[in-house]
Amino acid sequence: MRAVIPYKKAGAKSRLSPVLSLEEREEFVELMLNQVIDSLRGAGIEKIDILSPSVYGLEDMTKARVLLDEDDLNEALNRYLAGSEEPVLIVMADLPLLAPAHIKGISSTEKDVCIVPGKGGGTNALFIKNPSRYRVKYYGSSFLTHCSIATDTGQNFEIYDSFLAGTDIDEPEDLVELLIHGKGPAKEYISRKFRLEVSRGRVGLVLL
Amino acid sequence: MRAVIPYKKAGAKSRLSPVLSLEEREEFVELMLNQVIDSLRGAGIEKIDILSPSVYGLEDMTKARVLLDEDDLNEALNRYLAGSEEPVLIVMADLPLLAPAHIKGISSTEKDVCIVPGKGGGTNALFIKNPSRYRVKYYGSSFLTHCSIATDTGQNFEIYDSFLAGTDIDEPEDLVELLIHGKGPAKEYISRKFRLEVSRGRVGLVLL
Repeated sequence: MRAVIPYKKAGAKSRLSPVLSLEEREEFVELMLNQVIDSLRGAGIEKIDILSPSVYGLEDMTKARVLLDEDDLNEALNRYLAGSEEPVLIVMADLPLLAPAHIKGISSTEKDVCIVPGKGGGTNALFIKNPSRYRVKYYGSSFLTHCSIATDTGQNFEIYDSFLAGTDIDEPEDLVELLIHGKGPAKEYISRKFRLEVSRGRVGLVLL
Repeated sequence: MRAVIPYKKAGAKSRLSPVLSLEEREEFVELMLNQVIDSLRGAGIEKIDILSPSVYGLEDMTKARVLLDEDDLNEALNRYLAGSEEPVLIVMADLPLLAPAHIKGISSTEKDVCIVPGKGGGTNALFIKNPSRYRVKYYGSSFLTHCSIATDTGQNFEIYDSFLAGTDIDEPEDLVELLIHGKGPAKEYISRKFRLEVSRGRVGLVLL
């Protein structure tokens, strides 16, 4: 099997712009990318590709192969899948709570496809045993779409139920989960800038 | 073992008031409570208590024993734990995605305590094998607090990692998760009022 991580550093994570500057967001996504790669390697996955529209931020990448494709995320990934002859794990780059144990669990599914839901209807990871028979459609309610695509193409699927793997970091409230549940460089980066604000409702962020 | 569900119908779920009226919120929490009870029963748990400051909304409850305690949530629960001589599972009433399989998984922990994190630092469920040796402290960052309490009292603990059990319904965005991942009366109630709005970011709600 191989893993592929779609990645774009330039102007990344615009929904975090209320709390992080462009420069900070670009630093932060690079830390998250490296943690995802380390988790994949920790799970024993050696063939890791980064699929990016630009080499920006990947000039010195040695831990994974960099594939450039300027096309839209879905087009680029579907081209990648069509050319793959072994199982593929698609992992988003913004999952700093993803651990090697999750990756082992996802990729050991007995079904044809394993889908890891993210917050708000997204798909955080997608393991596809027969990639040339599957196509992806990210954006919007991609979790439901990816379930339907499996069914429509005659492939059964498992839903991998994990709070940690399900936490993609897109919005300021997600940084709260990183501070509470995370470890490693991405968490350390955020914990140098914010602390948790505890009230009676959900926990929030306060600038340091 | 026994399960206890803290519950308060009157004025429930004020953070949903931007999208649901008081009457709707009170109807909705009752549906969620009943689903949680059904999941507990589906997992084979027969001794179920509802701990409430008022009998309001529980006048006709036959599926669980109703215990009244007008004190604060933490005081009432700690009094309950102090008087318990068997393992206790504390489950929040706003977990319509919680399934019997989760409850079996949580209560079969090999550790002294099993903690189910919720969104934003909360604790959605807490299984305690020796309840008289534990005390709870909900509100704020209760997940971290409950981990510390276990450690401080010499009890080891497991963190139960589940997206579905981790989804407590407090804010409008949580209703999106219910519509995407849910089933049963609570989901049906919300799906009669809202539909999903699909954009490039996370999925939102639109009033029907």
